[in-house]
Amino acid sequence: MKRIYLAGLATLGVAICLGQSAAGAIEEPAYPEGYRRWTHVLTGVSDARFKRYEGMHNIYANPKAIEGYKADGAFPDGSVIVFDLFEVVDQEGATVATKRKFIDVMVKDSKRYAATGGWGYTEFLGDSRTDRAFTQDKAMVRCHACHVATPGRDSVITRFKD
Amino acid sequence: MKRIYLAGLATLGVAICLGQSAAGAIEEPAYPEGYRRWTHVLTGVSDARFKRYEGMHNIYANPKAIEGYKADGAFPDGSVIVFDLFEVVDQEGATVATKRKFIDVMVKDSKRYAATGGWGYTEFLGDSRTDRAFTQDKAMVRCHACHVATPGRDSVITRFKD
Repeated sequence: MKRIYLAGLATLGVAICLGQSAAGAIEEPAYPEGYRRWTHVLTGVSDARFKRYEGMHNIYANPKAIEGYKADGAFPDGSVIVFDLFEVVDQEGATVATKRKFIDVMVKDSKRYAATGGWGYTEFLGDSRTDRAFTQDKAMVRCHACHVATPGRDSVITRFKD
Repeated sequence: MKRIYLAGLATLGVAICLGQSAAGAIEEPAYPEGYRRWTHVLTGVSDARFKRYEGMHNIYANPKAIEGYKADGAFPDGSVIVFDLFEVVDQEGATVATKRKFIDVMVKDSKRYAATGGWGYTEFLGDSRTDRAFTQDKAMVRCHACHVATPGRDSVITRFKD
């Protein structure tokens, strides 16, 4: 009985620690492994007026996010959308992507990211899976501000077309 | 015994008919159902110098074709690659795809399309799954001529980058 009681306390202790840790800082969205095989939503090319977003961006959505694009309401928890940005060159009239600048990631978790419309945001520089452009607090403020200010649906600016 | 013999003859008859049919005309590659969920290879934007190919093209590959892109040698039979072309507009510095112009399809079948490097070609107009731009004879001549003349590998012009 005593042993079970201690085990129960230990489990409770772990739960409390995890809770405190989560409450202390906003959790960073993970690198979206395998996103290049997800569904391609669309591509756009932006000029210097778009400042650091200048270049060609390919947008990819995981299966949950595709459900969200297809539905009329909000995107389900687990949705992940990636904005994959490249530098471009002109090759005799053809605009061609060259070097990856960064990837922006948005992850839907309505509880974890309740303060920013249910979306967590992050940005990975170049081809890195670990090198993030911003501290998590800054990423949330910057990305959320723009996503809610731009016309779209549930903070998602793009639409999917088969 | 007699019944089995007749059944055998009937099967042989069907086989001969199919063989004659295949020999009489080049088989049209089928519409690539579901290609929008295949892997996105790359996107390019071409200006008026590219004539009927002017616009934004998204290229998609099925799993067999991805094997081909990843390997050093030829693409395996069953590879299908789609070139999905759209008109574009400029929206205050952003190049955005609008209306689908056509999709070009290349299908690898080294026996069926032996005369054109193992690739069968076709083109579907707009969003149609049935309206083809060229007779099959003409599609094979036109597409093959350009694909073998353009630098690439196994008649595939593009490269895949993760």
